[in-house]
Amino acid sequence: MTSLGIVAPQSMFFSTPLPLQSGAELCDYTLVYETYGTLNADHSNAVLVCHALNASHHVAGSYSEDASTRGWWDNMVGPGKALDTNKYFVIGVNNLGSCFGSTGPMHTNPATGKPYGARFPVVTVEDWVQSQARLADALGIQQFAAVMGGSLGGMQALAWSILFPERLRHCIVIASTPKLTAQNIAFDDVARQAILTDPDYHGGDFYEHGVVPKNGLRVARMLGHITYLSDDDMAVKFGRDLRSGAYQFGFGIDFEIESYLRYQGDKFSEYFDANTYLLITKALDYFDPAKDFGGDLTKTLSNTRAEFLLVSFSTDWRFAPERSHEIVQALVNNKRTVTYAEIDAPHGHDAFLLDDQRYMNVVSAYFARAYKEIDGGSLKAGARA
Amino acid sequence: MTSLGIVAPQSMFFSTPLPLQSGAELCDYTLVYETYGTLNADHSNAVLVCHALNASHHVAGSYSEDASTRGWWDNMVGPGKALDTNKYFVIGVNNLGSCFGSTGPMHTNPATGKPYGARFPVVTVEDWVQSQARLADALGIQQFAAVMGGSLGGMQALAWSILFPERLRHCIVIASTPKLTAQNIAFDDVARQAILTDPDYHGGDFYEHGVVPKNGLRVARMLGHITYLSDDDMAVKFGRDLRSGAYQFGFGIDFEIESYLRYQGDKFSEYFDANTYLLITKALDYFDPAKDFGGDLTKTLSNTRAEFLLVSFSTDWRFAPERSHEIVQALVNNKRTVTYAEIDAPHGHDAFLLDDQRYMNVVSAYFARAYKEIDGGSLKAGARA
Repeated sequence: MTSLGIVAPQSMFFSTPLPLQSGAELCDYTLVYETYGTLNADHSNAVLVCHALNASHHVAGSYSEDASTRGWWDNMVGPGKALDTNKYFVIGVNNLGSCFGSTGPMHTNPATGKPYGARFPVVTVEDWVQSQARLADALGIQQFAAVMGGSLGGMQALAWSILFPERLRHCIVIASTPKLTAQNIAFDDVARQAILTDPDYHGGDFYEHGVVPKNGLRVARMLGHITYLSDDDMAVKFGRDLRSGAYQFGFGIDFEIESYLRYQGDKFSEYFDANTYLLITKALDYFDPAKDFGGDLTKTLSNTRAEFLLVSFSTDWRFAPERSHEIVQALVNNKRTVTYAEIDAPHGHDAFLLDDQRYMNVVSAYFARAYKEIDGGSLKAGARA
Repeated sequence: MTSLGIVAPQSMFFSTPLPLQSGAELCDYTLVYETYGTLNADHSNAVLVCHALNASHHVAGSYSEDASTRGWWDNMVGPGKALDTNKYFVIGVNNLGSCFGSTGPMHTNPATGKPYGARFPVVTVEDWVQSQARLADALGIQQFAAVMGGSLGGMQALAWSILFPERLRHCIVIASTPKLTAQNIAFDDVARQAILTDPDYHGGDFYEHGVVPKNGLRVARMLGHITYLSDDDMAVKFGRDLRSGAYQFGFGIDFEIESYLRYQGDKFSEYFDANTYLLITKALDYFDPAKDFGGDLTKTLSNTRAEFLLVSFSTDWRFAPERSHEIVQALVNNKRTVTYAEIDAPHGHDAFLLDDQRYMNVVSAYFARAYKEIDGGSLKAGARA
């Protein structure tokens, strides 16, 4: 298995205003994206990969020889990999409101000539899907072979299947949920409060003060990390191991787990935008497609046309397997074709990003089977209907 | 069942320095405590109730007609209640480092003439037990009928059974653990970092600046509350209920769970001391009596002489039933007499403070049986051995 090698992002400007679920609109915007592999003649082999909280359009390949520039799902996407770029044309797109290139809070608000800051409109998973659909239009992709994502990315894939049922043949939803629980929302709100009450946040206008709300972001990220790992995994990786072999009887670092979390928090606070963090957690909290159907997920998914692959991980307590079961059950109620794999993995929510041979095999086999439609030409015989 | 009515705290000054586990010492200190009921002639009916994170010596009764001044375990302790003050002499004592009267960070450091602040020494569960033993000495109590506590209070009860095996006949450990997991420590450290990095913390010397690190304390408390409630309980109590029926598309309050947590955080930050919060979470993190026995809990508990009651709650994910099982197993390995009850309760860790008839019945029956030793005079026949 080789990597994609050096890749480069592209960008596309959209001058048509994008109406948002909130009632606001973005008057214009830029989407940054990457593509890997080659779009085939009838444009039937495109796969859209949607990203989660702190990831981006940089799904696979590297920006330089430096391995640290590798994409966040490089173990999944590439030549000969589970999502095989020798067969599929893969698109990674950075979501609106992010801090990795697409229009976001640090960009200039055309209405004021200053950075959007906290005035960047709250965007939803559905808003992202609408903006992605315009990119697909521009790239000449009427129907995706698959839309795929993990966690918040899985929500986008699910939203695609609801909003544009004819525009994807397969929907791949990994380690995701049809909606956040009260506990999920609670964690998100503590993180947001840490940022919003950091004096360096300056009501979202910290850019012009030349500071960032580092302390708030740091706490938010530390907290996030606890929910990404399983209790068991933390016990195995860190347990009660002490940094220096003995209690320090102070408030510095005693335990290895403290060292790990503070390091993760520090690193994150140096590159991630605080307004983006707020926006993305709101998109997570608001996602609830069944809300407009009286909470009935079966009804919500009744217009979907795609085939589905769902994957969950046994120790994921952020979006537990039960959350995937709800989606599977609603799809089965609608007599959709669903493949479901529950991977017994120790790594909690993070497992969706990690190498696990059974997990990769499931996705690989699914894409191999889906490719037969493309390769065998069965699409023309009506498989798109 | 009637309440104890109006009660009042007492205090005792100790001029003998207290050596601490850290190697530091407190040159002198005051303990604030309350007592309920009457100490019998042979001083055999005393029960020590140890408190958890944000509680105090004010276990039961009220300070006025105002019901909000009721003690934190008033449902458990009183005339005719599970811990019956018509039979037992109950003592609640405020721990060193607390902010409710016993010597703590906001008190004057005799060495400097200024408040201790962050220079208050880090105290451990074992240090608390040593200080409590001196209070028992002063009150003429050589042996407690029982030492009892929930959560961090349960750790103190367990430490009593190890440090002073002959000084308690019964050890009651509720919703507790023999040591924190990496995940428990992780949550504590995020809370501490929120406080320590709050600019209003001023390195612990916020008293002289006339401010409190309200934002940090608030985030710490919000986070704590998530771990006290079960996921299920949160789902039932709050679910995804919206404060005003519709998404607000901003960073104010959307969900009821946000409103609840922010309210709890606000309230807490107005009365609780930040340095105390740091100290108490450290005491939690450091508690690990088996550490000196190569991690062998059976060996750790081999010198205990008490009989034990352990109670856990099915949905407590902070200190799950499995943590109590570890203690029970180690006691059984030592052929100790152990009663264990696992209460199927939806309220998570908080259940130990709440009314649950089965829970109260277990504790009530246990104390009624223990009272026969006192009442029947079997103590003199050697039951103390």
